[in-house]
Amino acid sequence: MASQKPVLYSYFRSSCSWRVRIVLAHKGIEYDYRPINLLKKGQCTQVGDEFKKLNPMGQVPALVIGDKTFTQSLSIMEYLEEVYPQNPLLPKDPILKAKVREVCEVICSGIQPLQQNSSVLQRVGEEKMMEWRHFFINKGFIALEELLSGCSGKYCVGDEVTLADCCLVPQVYNANRFKVDLSQFPVISGIHQALSGLNSVTASHPSAQPDCPPDLK
Amino acid sequence: MASQKPVLYSYFRSSCSWRVRIVLAHKGIEYDYRPINLLKKGQCTQVGDEFKKLNPMGQVPALVIGDKTFTQSLSIMEYLEEVYPQNPLLPKDPILKAKVREVCEVICSGIQPLQQNSSVLQRVGEEKMMEWRHFFINKGFIALEELLSGCSGKYCVGDEVTLADCCLVPQVYNANRFKVDLSQFPVISGIHQALSGLNSVTASHPSAQPDCPPDLK
Repeated sequence: MASQKPVLYSYFRSSCSWRVRIVLAHKGIEYDYRPINLLKKGQCTQVGDEFKKLNPMGQVPALVIGDKTFTQSLSIMEYLEEVYPQNPLLPKDPILKAKVREVCEVICSGIQPLQQNSSVLQRVGEEKMMEWRHFFINKGFIALEELLSGCSGKYCVGDEVTLADCCLVPQVYNANRFKVDLSQFPVISGIHQALSGLNSVTASHPSAQPDCPPDLK
Repeated sequence: MASQKPVLYSYFRSSCSWRVRIVLAHKGIEYDYRPINLLKKGQCTQVGDEFKKLNPMGQVPALVIGDKTFTQSLSIMEYLEEVYPQNPLLPKDPILKAKVREVCEVICSGIQPLQQNSSVLQRVGEEKMMEWRHFFINKGFIALEELLSGCSGKYCVGDEVTLADCCLVPQVYNANRFKVDLSQFPVISGIHQALSGLNSVTASHPSAQPDCPPDLK
């Protein structure tokens, strides 16, 4: 299984895709990149048709290894952690492991879906969208700042990079993109700064992906 | 660690609390139940004050074992699975394990926060709340029905109860509570029926909790 080259279906600016890209980069797993344009979802492109067969839910990220398709970012990340154990992203201690997953869940269930789910934003409407995003990122970051104050070191949980950091990076990118004032969150900002210099983060950054439009590079 | 009696801070009708209660019941872990009334969050009660010290985020569920507080339902469930290995709720095979976590994530990040997060519903407003809930449960269940069609047996993933089932039960309860037409989802309905008869589900049911008001029993 682990000897087959994975194929990642990704969109350069999808937070959930980026989480998985950080894990792949951190573990030095070589993979093929297949861009799926989320904004042109309805279009019948060759990749689109192929993708629909592999992942009927049509969401990115999807990771294909051999004849198996894996979807949902945290599930993929946990799978990669188990099957490619090099450069581990979960501590061995069960209590610290729970803390890492707690941070992941606060971001992935408590913040990201509320401020990025396209159906939510469509129903909120263009006019109120920015205020809605700000509200939920701010609310989530207040909780996250408190949580991280109790468990962070250089990174989210202690001084080693974990799955929690792979979730934090894209969430802070979104906050910056939507001009949330991050000076209110010194712990989050400090960890993000430490993470920003890592090769696994720069290599997986949206601007470094083949489907990033030239004007956003 | 595992020898100390856990204390669960819970609210009878909180989906996230119920997920954890199913895991505790399934594994036969004895625990003390402390009700936290989410509707009276601002009130200074004895339990409320004690709880705020243990869990500054003020959310349920929170599981306290010795001097450690665990929050976020999936993180707690994974922790219990690791520390109390009896009656396992994750398959050994990494591919099946990924499938279980995929189902959990579709429910816990893709459905539940959008239809039950109190800040979301408050901003949507009383008038549009029911339609909003229906829309997101329906949308999520269409995806979930397709996903489960490919992996379910008697339960969500094969014929053994897993963490995915612990997430499904409270989500179907919500769908019923908000009168979503479940006849559209025969796979979900069939699995839910099989789960409903389990002791771990009846014992952990909202109506069986000490903080359930008599008129809802």
